[in-house]
Amino acid sequence: MSELRVGVLPETNDRVERAVREAGGSVVEVREGERLDGLVVWFGTRPDDLERTLEAHPEASWVQLPSAGIEKYAGSLRAHLELAWTSAKGAYAEPVAEHALALTLALLRLLPERARATSWGEVAGTSLHGLEVVVVGAGGVGLEIVRLMKGFRTTVTVVRRSDAPAEGADRTVTSDRLAEVLAHADVVVVAAALTDGTRRLLDADALALLQPHAVVVNIARGGLIDTDALVSALREERIAGAALDVTDPEPLPDGHPLWTEPRALITPHTADTPAMIEPLLADRIGRNVAARRAGSPLEGVVDPRAGY
Amino acid sequence: MSELRVGVLPETNDRVERAVREAGGSVVEVREGERLDGLVVWFGTRPDDLERTLEAHPEASWVQLPSAGIEKYAGSLRAHLELAWTSAKGAYAEPVAEHALALTLALLRLLPERARATSWGEVAGTSLHGLEVVVVGAGGVGLEIVRLMKGFRTTVTVVRRSDAPAEGADRTVTSDRLAEVLAHADVVVVAAALTDGTRRLLDADALALLQPHAVVVNIARGGLIDTDALVSALREERIAGAALDVTDPEPLPDGHPLWTEPRALITPHTADTPAMIEPLLADRIGRNVAARRAGSPLEGVVDPRAGY
Repeated sequence: MSELRVGVLPETNDRVERAVREAGGSVVEVREGERLDGLVVWFGTRPDDLERTLEAHPEASWVQLPSAGIEKYAGSLRAHLELAWTSAKGAYAEPVAEHALALTLALLRLLPERARATSWGEVAGTSLHGLEVVVVGAGGVGLEIVRLMKGFRTTVTVVRRSDAPAEGADRTVTSDRLAEVLAHADVVVVAAALTDGTRRLLDADALALLQPHAVVVNIARGGLIDTDALVSALREERIAGAALDVTDPEPLPDGHPLWTEPRALITPHTADTPAMIEPLLADRIGRNVAARRAGSPLEGVVDPRAGY
Repeated sequence: MSELRVGVLPETNDRVERAVREAGGSVVEVREGERLDGLVVWFGTRPDDLERTLEAHPEASWVQLPSAGIEKYAGSLRAHLELAWTSAKGAYAEPVAEHALALTLALLRLLPERARATSWGEVAGTSLHGLEVVVVGAGGVGLEIVRLMKGFRTTVTVVRRSDAPAEGADRTVTSDRLAEVLAHADVVVVAAALTDGTRRLLDADALALLQPHAVVVNIARGGLIDTDALVSALREERIAGAALDVTDPEPLPDGHPLWTEPRALITPHTADTPAMIEPLLADRIGRNVAARRAGSPLEGVVDPRAGY
C-alpha cells in the first residue's frame, strides 16, 4: 500500500481529515512545494481555485469532486483529461431517491393542496400501489429510486442510454423509446445526468404524450425539463402535477408562475442537504483514498468527455 | 364445500357479487323469509340497518364489516357476541401505510412549508435514513408501516399490547414502556386501534417526552391523540411537526388552530379512499366466503370484547 498525500479545497475540515486518515492517507496543505497525489474538491470550491491548483500541481493524478453533477467544474475536466476524476455520483443516492419518493407520494396524495387548505377537503388522492412508474436515468440515484418504488407493487420501466437491464426494474428501454413509455406512465421520475443529449429531454412534445393523471418529479437537474412547456401542461391540466427539486432557472425567481401553480410543488434543491451528504461524501473519499493506495478501482469515476 | 348465502347491506353491488360468486357463494336479497348464512356490511351501512337485519336473521352466523375500526357498529357487536365478526383490519394496510410514509416524509422534508412558499427557501430538511422510528400498534397497518420504514435504514421500535415480537421490527416493547421509547424517537407513527385503553394515548404527558425535532403521524383514529395538547406542543415548538389523517373532532372544524399551525399537515381521512379500498374489501370478502365454505379460519376476526 503506497503513501497518499491529499490536498483539500477550498480548505480542509475535520470530517475529510478523519476519512483520509482512517483510509491510510494523509491530508497535506495545498501550497507550492507540497507534493499532492490527490485533490479533494469539498463543497464551495470555486472553479478558478480548482484550475489554479491543478496547474500548480501537475503531479496530482486524482481529483475527487463533491457532487454528482460536474457542470460547475467542466472546464477543468476538459482541460485535464489525463487525470483520474471521480465525482459523488451514486454516493447521495439514498437521500435523493428518498426525496424523489417523498415528492411522488406528495403529488399522488395531493399534499400540496392539503397543506394550503384551511378546511376539511374532499376525499381524493391516488395510491402508488399498482402504478406504472418510469424512471429516466439508471445511475446510482435512478437505481435507488427503482428499489424504493418496487416496495409499492409498482411496475417500473427504466429509460437509459445503454440497453443493459437496470437492476430491479421490470423493464429497461433505451432513450430512443422514451416517447413510447411516457404514454403509459402514471409517474415519471427524472434522474438522468444533464448532458447535451439530455437537455430538455422533457420538452413540449414529450410532455404532450403524458396521460392527464400522470405526475412528473425531477430531482436531477432543472435543464432536463423545458420549464415553459411544463408550466403550460400544468396550467392546461394536461398533467396532474409536477414536483421539482431542481429548476431552470435555478433558483426559481420570485413571481415565476410555478410558485402559484396549484399543481406544482417546488423544493429548493434540498433532496440532499449538506447535513445529509457531508458524511456520505467523506465515506466516498475514504474509500477512494483506500482504492488509490491499493491500486484498485475508484468509485464514481467520471468520463470527462461524456460529462458524467 | 357448503353452500353460502350472503346478504349485502345497504345494497349489493357488482364488485361484491363478483367476489362472492368467484369464491363459490351466492348473494341473496336481504328480506324476510330469505335464509342468510352471512352478511356483508358494505360502506355506508347505517348501524340501525345492521341491527335490524341481525334481529330479523338470527340464522346468519358471520358478519363482515367494511372498516378496520369497528366503533360505528360497536352496539351490534356487543349485542351479538355469538356471531363470527370479521372486519377489514389489515386489508387496507398497503394504502394506509403508504399514506403514513407520505406524511412522515412530508414532515421531514418540510413539504407543507414548501407547498405554501412563493419564493426559493433555505436549505433544510431531514432524511428518514438512519432515524429512530416508533410505530404504535402492530396490526396489519402497523406491520406494513414497519416494512416500509425498514427500507430506509431506520431503527424501528414497535409498541404493542402483547410482548410478541412484531415482524420486521428491530425491537418490540409492551405499551407500558411507551414513555421510555417516545423519549428517543425521531418519528412516531400512531397505528393503534382506538379502545378505552388507547384513548388519548398521546396526551400532554406523552407529548412532553418527545424530542424537539420529533414528528408525529396519525393514520389510525383521531381519539388516540389529545388534540389540544398537540396544538400546544406544536405552537410552543416542543415538537417539529404533526401530520394527521384523522382528527378529534373529525372532520376538523373550520377555524380550528391546526388549520393555520405551520408545523401541522392535515389530510381529510384520505389514507384509504373508496377507490383504493373497495377492491381490497372485495378481495377479503371473497377469501372469507371461501374460508366459511371450507370451514377454515376467517381473516380479520374481531374480538367484540376487545373492540378490534
